[in-house]
Amino acid sequence: MAITGVLRPGLCQIRVLDMAAAKTHYIDRVGLDFVGEGPDGRVYLKAYDEFDRHSIVLRQADESGCDLFAFRVARPSDLDSFEQRIKDYGYTVYHVEAGEMPGVGRRIGTVIPSGHRIELYAEIEMADRHPPITNPDLWTDEPHGMRPIRMDHALLYGPNIEEVQDFFEKALDFRCAEKVMLPDGLLATWLTCSTKAHDIAFVKHPEPGKFHHVSFFLEDWNAVGWASDIITRYNISRDIGPTRHGITRGTTIYFFDPSGNRNEVFAGGYTYYPTDPTRMWDETELGKGIFYYEQQLNERFLTVVT
Amino acid sequence: MAITGVLRPGLCQIRVLDMAAAKTHYIDRVGLDFVGEGPDGRVYLKAYDEFDRHSIVLRQADESGCDLFAFRVARPSDLDSFEQRIKDYGYTVYHVEAGEMPGVGRRIGTVIPSGHRIELYAEIEMADRHPPITNPDLWTDEPHGMRPIRMDHALLYGPNIEEVQDFFEKALDFRCAEKVMLPDGLLATWLTCSTKAHDIAFVKHPEPGKFHHVSFFLEDWNAVGWASDIITRYNISRDIGPTRHGITRGTTIYFFDPSGNRNEVFAGGYTYYPTDPTRMWDETELGKGIFYYEQQLNERFLTVVT
Amino acid sequence: MAITGVLRPGLCQIRVLDMAAAKTHYIDRVGLDFVGEGPDGRVYLKAYDEFDRHSIVLRQADESGCDLFAFRVARPSDLDSFEQRIKDYGYTVYHVEAGEMPGVGRRIGTVIPSGHRIELYAEIEMADRHPPITNPDLWTDEPHGMRPIRMDHALLYGPNIEEVQDFFEKALDFRCAEKVMLPDGLLATWLTCSTKAHDIAFVKHPEPGKFHHVSFFLEDWNAVGWASDIITRYNISRDIGPTRHGITRGTTIYFFDPSGNRNEVFAGGYTYYPTDPTRMWDETELGKGIFYYEQQLNERFLTVVT
Amino acid sequence: MAITGVLRPGLCQIRVLDMAAAKTHYIDRVGLDFVGEGPDGRVYLKAYDEFDRHSIVLRQADESGCDLFAFRVARPSDLDSFEQRIKDYGYTVYHVEAGEMPGVGRRIGTVIPSGHRIELYAEIEMADRHPPITNPDLWTDEPHGMRPIRMDHALLYGPNIEEVQDFFEKALDFRCAEKVMLPDGLLATWLTCSTKAHDIAFVKHPEPGKFHHVSFFLEDWNAVGWASDIITRYNISRDIGPTRHGITRGTTIYFFDPSGNRNEVFAGGYTYYPTDPTRMWDETELGKGIFYYEQQLNERFLTVVT
Repeated sequence: MAITGVLRPGLCQIRVLDMAAAKTHYIDRVGLDFVGEGPDGRVYLKAYDEFDRHSIVLRQADESGCDLFAFRVARPSDLDSFEQRIKDYGYTVYHVEAGEMPGVGRRIGTVIPSGHRIELYAEIEMADRHPPITNPDLWTDEPHGMRPIRMDHALLYGPNIEEVQDFFEKALDFRCAEKVMLPDGLLATWLTCSTKAHDIAFVKHPEPGKFHHVSFFLEDWNAVGWASDIITRYNISRDIGPTRHGITRGTTIYFFDPSGNRNEVFAGGYTYYPTDPTRMWDETELGKGIFYYEQQLNERFLTVVT
Repeated sequence: MAITGVLRPGLCQIRVLDMAAAKTHYIDRVGLDFVGEGPDGRVYLKAYDEFDRHSIVLRQADESGCDLFAFRVARPSDLDSFEQRIKDYGYTVYHVEAGEMPGVGRRIGTVIPSGHRIELYAEIEMADRHPPITNPDLWTDEPHGMRPIRMDHALLYGPNIEEVQDFFEKALDFRCAEKVMLPDGLLATWLTCSTKAHDIAFVKHPEPGKFHHVSFFLEDWNAVGWASDIITRYNISRDIGPTRHGITRGTTIYFFDPSGNRNEVFAGGYTYYPTDPTRMWDETELGKGIFYYEQQLNERFLTVVT
Repeated sequence: MAITGVLRPGLCQIRVLDMAAAKTHYIDRVGLDFVGEGPDGRVYLKAYDEFDRHSIVLRQADESGCDLFAFRVARPSDLDSFEQRIKDYGYTVYHVEAGEMPGVGRRIGTVIPSGHRIELYAEIEMADRHPPITNPDLWTDEPHGMRPIRMDHALLYGPNIEEVQDFFEKALDFRCAEKVMLPDGLLATWLTCSTKAHDIAFVKHPEPGKFHHVSFFLEDWNAVGWASDIITRYNISRDIGPTRHGITRGTTIYFFDPSGNRNEVFAGGYTYYPTDPTRMWDETELGKGIFYYEQQLNERFLTVVT
Repeated sequence: MAITGVLRPGLCQIRVLDMAAAKTHYIDRVGLDFVGEGPDGRVYLKAYDEFDRHSIVLRQADESGCDLFAFRVARPSDLDSFEQRIKDYGYTVYHVEAGEMPGVGRRIGTVIPSGHRIELYAEIEMADRHPPITNPDLWTDEPHGMRPIRMDHALLYGPNIEEVQDFFEKALDFRCAEKVMLPDGLLATWLTCSTKAHDIAFVKHPEPGKFHHVSFFLEDWNAVGWASDIITRYNISRDIGPTRHGITRGTTIYFFDPSGNRNEVFAGGYTYYPTDPTRMWDETELGKGIFYYEQQLNERFLTVVT
């Protein structure tokens, strides 16, 4: 297929209450690599198999949550065309100068009606510790911690998610791979700009701008088990798992960083093609959709967000 | 990203010498589902997780090999635009009427300079036994045999593969995820129209139109081991594996169908994005590129094709 | 080590309310092989990797539960010496004639103070579908359902478990691999006659003779995941899992047969040697001991028994 | 069963040509823990899940190979009874004083007719970094390198292996779980003192006292794959694998330490009970017995020993 436009999730900036504890969590336990610390104290991290300079940004703050979720686009000129499309859709576009994050080019952004900052950027430096390119080994240094392969997606909670879905489809060329329709409307939607079952997802929630989780991709179900072992061994606060989602089919475990932000590590999930039908869930089997083994919802999973 | 143009491999028509033996192999051992037999005796098969009516076509013939490898495109109008682009590139386009295969719309094709028939089509019926869509379980019937998820790609052998790569890149919007450059030129190229490390691959070979293997995607390394157990238990002729490729990183085992056509089942492999560099192998580490554990080539793997 | 005396769990006779439903469950879903039906209607089943004629016996009854749990001893003469040792310990021994179960030699038994019938036998016919012996393949027919390797152990609930532990240690040469000591005494004990972390286990419970679960051994954590998929797909009533036990370290999922008897399928667990210390859990970490990931008990797991 | 006599392999003393290279290999790559270095320069290592002070002993020497392979017995008095039984069998017993290895009690030994030193000991200190006992986590520090669970067994090459088998069975209460009988006699035998498929194995070879490999137990097939990745990444000399043995059914990969001593890491294998028949292989399927997937022998595997 023609590989154009929005390529993939690239940056997730997370607010943490205690940077030292956050670094231990994301580096030693989750297993990200430390890239650097900026002059404003923000800490930049990446997964071992990512080419780009960084993907996770930690910012010390008084309140936890997610500042912004940004997608990389294929070409600098895409920023201009998406700016026009976003404006044509009726949303306001803001600009972030190149260098606001070290190694990252200019970004454009908009606040979507669920209350989240969604940004696009085209340029980012290649990481010093990028995956090998010439006669490449699988990795240079052994993956550590939970051995995450990449930052994969985020799930955001907020109001107006029908509008949000429409915006992602019409202005950014995403598709809906899977959704939950209740008698009173759309409860949740899994949106993809690629062949992954989701690159971003939204759940209907009264309070705007809330962060449910950022997710890291693992190799397989064995790696989900290994992550589970680490979570208990190091007394990381677990939410739910290891289990499987009916939706996306991913195998998964959820836990919290020391600031209360939820993380997921997951594996698997189907490959989505645009010729595939959108998978649909309704109220009769919603529990199975969310947690395929438990077949019931976990109150904390539905209500605790940052 | 905008999901347009050539989406994915869709059809692989294989010549078999003994249809009964081929059916036992592909259905009972590899684990495809039987879809139907056409009036001309061709047998249609699919993997359990494919929506489309069929992906593998078996044709009884006096000589084994691959008749054609076809990609599904996003929209019927894409067939017209690709026809023009192929002609503009300088190749001849042939047409296959809708219904030549049951349930498949019209196809266009060209014979590329490696001697292979490559086709495009936009329409195919949804399979009766498609993956569930509403409140979907993982599967309806337990996957059987080697439990392949989908027909994934083919590797073809022939001359002029620099030209072939250029054609796929310029006329069909593929990208080269990985390649082997020897002092005397391109030995092999892995081409993708998606974010898979390869949707089709070519190796330089003096004789045109040769078929190295068709590959089926498995869940993980455990499934590769399970396939290996089946191969020995049922005296299926093994080529090499279980092992891993340095190139694409896939874990894999190769074996032959009763007609001598090579099959692969594999798992894993990295996700390729167009912002990624093309991975490059040279003569110093070629063995490791092909078989990461053995670090040496297997004469049979290089020379036996159908 | 000298391999003498009580070798391993061999027979578990389970009461079921609906034999047809039980057969579907244990054969099609759990994946045992059907061996035969006796003249009294009892149904005999085995796991694919067991040499002995059968291991699970289903008996139609008005109340679910476990009739008896029997261990195979090394030699017929062991039955005499254990009879003497049991009597010397102060318990009554009953006798069951050879042939009471088809293919099984004479058994001796005793009702232990937790209220359970524990039996010993030395002779049982080799199964018709035993694992191959000469130039053996891994299996003859592909394992099906959850692909259990063997009936592995049972967990029984009842009073007086300190006495029960003492009896198993002194009269039957078992050892305690792991136990839970609460301020008011022994809550649970895992007893082994081999190098497995447990061949039988007991939990303190006011009502005598209760059956918590019979457990089947799987290959690995991947197989636990596969069993979990089957459980949801076929609407089998799940108790808890997939998870891991801190105690024994086994990875596991629990579910119920259609009569309400609990089953476990599990994998892993440490190898226990008699020079190893007995692992000890106390009230501060009991939740983690039972369910390593959840770190908390599940009321149903503690109270629902048959 | 009564757990008496010879319990399990406990010590393997390996001669290495370059201690620094050996330490990097066994500690950083294989993943053993460093325990200490003795006054005579010997280096003591252990796997993370072993309670005993050490299991692998490295000794700098001019020639690689294995000095001795020792089994732990249940009680000090067993040393006296086994001394008598070995003498009664007609072999000479030698004595090694307590403290010859730090933390290890007195040992008795004999040189068996294959030319190997086989020893027994009853006492060894518990390791400082032993597996946790009270409210035990799975591990204290994350397993590293290939993550071996324990030193598991050795395969030794030498003459007179029928006699050796007889000695192990009659004097030490081992059993033969599996063997290869060729028209000219016993080629190989897998002997167990437990329920493992092998605690030691012998292959007929003209030269006495040769060392084929020491083997470390891994969690599962995924861990065998991980070990394979490490072997290639760090340019460790591989012999064969990842593959599976027909004999014992273990999944495996073989490689060499920097001194040319062969190592194995493996997973799986059946549980052997004394009521099981001895599995038998003959010349018609020997290739499959040794390497289940390749179904053919590897000259290096048969002839390269230290």
